[in-house]
Amino acid sequence: MSEFLELLPPDQALELILSRYKPDAPREEVEAVDALGRVSAAPVCAPYALPSFNRSTVDGFAVRAADTFGASDSLPAYLQLRREVPMGAAADFELMAGECALIHTGGMLPAGADAVVMIEHTQNAPGNVVEIQRAVAPGENMLEAGEDVRQGEEVLPAGKRLRPEDIGGLMALGVTRLIVAASPRVGLISSGDEVIPPGNELQPGQVRDVNSYSLGALVERAGGTPVRSRIAPDRLEALSESAQRAHAECELVVITAGSSVSARDLTAQAIQALGAPGVLVHGVNIKPGKPTILALCGGKPVIGLPGNPVSALVSARLFVLPLIERLLGLAKPAPAPSLIARLSLNLASQAGREDWVPVRLVQEGQAYLAEPVFGKSNLIFTLSRADGLIRIPADANGLNAGESVTVYLL
Amino acid sequence: MSEFLELLPPDQALELILSRYKPDAPREEVEAVDALGRVSAAPVCAPYALPSFNRSTVDGFAVRAADTFGASDSLPAYLQLRREVPMGAAADFELMAGECALIHTGGMLPAGADAVVMIEHTQNAPGNVVEIQRAVAPGENMLEAGEDVRQGEEVLPAGKRLRPEDIGGLMALGVTRLIVAASPRVGLISSGDEVIPPGNELQPGQVRDVNSYSLGALVERAGGTPVRSRIAPDRLEALSESAQRAHAECELVVITAGSSVSARDLTAQAIQALGAPGVLVHGVNIKPGKPTILALCGGKPVIGLPGNPVSALVSARLFVLPLIERLLGLAKPAPAPSLIARLSLNLASQAGREDWVPVRLVQEGQAYLAEPVFGKSNLIFTLSRADGLIRIPADANGLNAGESVTVYLL
Repeated sequence: MSEFLELLPPDQALELILSRYKPDAPREEVEAVDALGRVSAAPVCAPYALPSFNRSTVDGFAVRAADTFGASDSLPAYLQLRREVPMGAAADFELMAGECALIHTGGMLPAGADAVVMIEHTQNAPGNVVEIQRAVAPGENMLEAGEDVRQGEEVLPAGKRLRPEDIGGLMALGVTRLIVAASPRVGLISSGDEVIPPGNELQPGQVRDVNSYSLGALVERAGGTPVRSRIAPDRLEALSESAQRAHAECELVVITAGSSVSARDLTAQAIQALGAPGVLVHGVNIKPGKPTILALCGGKPVIGLPGNPVSALVSARLFVLPLIERLLGLAKPAPAPSLIARLSLNLASQAGREDWVPVRLVQEGQAYLAEPVFGKSNLIFTLSRADGLIRIPADANGLNAGESVTVYLL
Repeated sequence: MSEFLELLPPDQALELILSRYKPDAPREEVEAVDALGRVSAAPVCAPYALPSFNRSTVDGFAVRAADTFGASDSLPAYLQLRREVPMGAAADFELMAGECALIHTGGMLPAGADAVVMIEHTQNAPGNVVEIQRAVAPGENMLEAGEDVRQGEEVLPAGKRLRPEDIGGLMALGVTRLIVAASPRVGLISSGDEVIPPGNELQPGQVRDVNSYSLGALVERAGGTPVRSRIAPDRLEALSESAQRAHAECELVVITAGSSVSARDLTAQAIQALGAPGVLVHGVNIKPGKPTILALCGGKPVIGLPGNPVSALVSARLFVLPLIERLLGLAKPAPAPSLIARLSLNLASQAGREDWVPVRLVQEGQAYLAEPVFGKSNLIFTLSRADGLIRIPADANGLNAGESVTVYLL
């Protein structure tokens, strides 16, 4: 058991690999309509101002504001109705002093107009005249051209994951294509003599491959493309061959070890053989996930995870996801989806080690109660039955019942 | 302006339509490997127990616990080494009293064995004998068959959105296909004489269609399939025809109105013509989003949203997403991703109306500051520049600087 010579805290372990990993991530051009969840790889600047013309925000009459000064119910102003501005068409005339124009919400203000009086504050008067019962200030009830975005302004920085709002913004500007980070290929290798594909009939002593699929889904959700290898047996040659192939084809490789100690040692050897500098971290001060290996081999990260599915998932959240975000060029990682809950019972933990505990959420009105899900750590359904994970920091001896905890949703 | 005869609070408006809408949602069978984010449409029960055999959780020696009772460093027990259990193979022999078997983490315990002694607490002795320096209790350092899941136990309820953990669990059980809710088709109709497709050259007075795309991405993210119609002009006949086509093809229809009041009235008329009972809610006491229409026509929900992109998105989150979740058969809606932040300044609001305000998040150590993004409500980049929305409840006159607020992430 000489493998854990030095256990780094998880944040330091992550920092150690991130500080040495500055990938030049591949990029591609996509249709904006297909870009939900993709990460912009170049800033987008506005080709036009938005709005592109002075727009009314109400139904009413476009006016020169000065013509309405002092107008009130008892002392209205009277303006000559010039014409109506039809929706979706240019207001191709100039409004002169003493004139107004009928306009609809979203309609274009004619030249000369600098405000709009709401229709509720007007009345038709004889002789094609409109009675204005309320004064408006310049700019009132309208948007100025460029008020949302000026021409040339950066509207999307590089490194942002696109949300519906961003896609809407691009469309408003007629930007229908953009450059995004290519989806990183993440090689996934499950190893272990006892591991078989999920669709196979189980023989005594065998277990089905969970990690290629659970980690694959985690990778997919983060925007990566899982590339699953055939299950590798617990022989160095076979595991190395599989690792080399994945290392050549993918931007990032994740190997989940067989469950025995000797199988985990094999993983470290196979990783070390992939290139310099090799293994940076061997063992992290965390539960579950202690036997995690972080390596950089020939410029690509290679991560060794414990074979048990719960440890593998917890550790992948902490170490694989940030590497995918780095590969995507995400400028600032999104806050992990979380909510605040009240812990249902006392939780002990070993001081000096960071613990992650699965919890189930019980809604209590607007609030949530977090109930730890017990079960030995290698039982996948311990996680499947949970809603989230809570973190017990290394400097705590545990958490107390009733305490507010952040639950990181699964 | 007679359209808002009665403005319902948003929660009551939603309840009014949800209480009358019990769709029989279409389902389909998919590969579990492709099921991330899909919603299970039938419960899954375990075809086998998990683990399927008694497994060691350590490297060591399988024993009959009774043979170790009282064993210690100074007074070890001596057990005959029967053989090694190879990984991934059956332990097809029975361990007799006085015997032990070498076993690896994850290996299968032979019949008769009921505990494992860790290898650190043993020593080899002459004559194929193992010295046991520590007593173990029955069940120690092992998992019993069925300890994670019993055969026949429900492991996935109907109505759950699948996460990586759930896919892993299914694979562990060899469940490689499952029944999920089909992705609901959501018809999206943008209307307005001034609205043109985003790829077209803009003429004065025109604006590009934002809503079909921003709402489409919102629908996609929720698990629906956006079905975009051609942009409808502000004529009842054209809008009705478009609405009828979408209503026939889709499970849910969303129409965003032209921006003028008369265009919004057209939307209500077109919706009313789609079938009974028709419009249930016309106007909601919320900002932005007041002119929202909620209707049920021939068993399908039809939602009329304000034309301006910000109002449309805010309103769609509140009313379209819960309908998609209902269509997916989600048993309990996931908590909307959110985080707690400190408000940067005082925010006034009109009492009696629920307000939603876009905010930008500024990280301050582990905490967040929420800075309202100002801008007239119909500017799409007001949202694109924001990280989330905060809610000012109807019974408040606003929120105070420094107050803790829940930020719902965009």
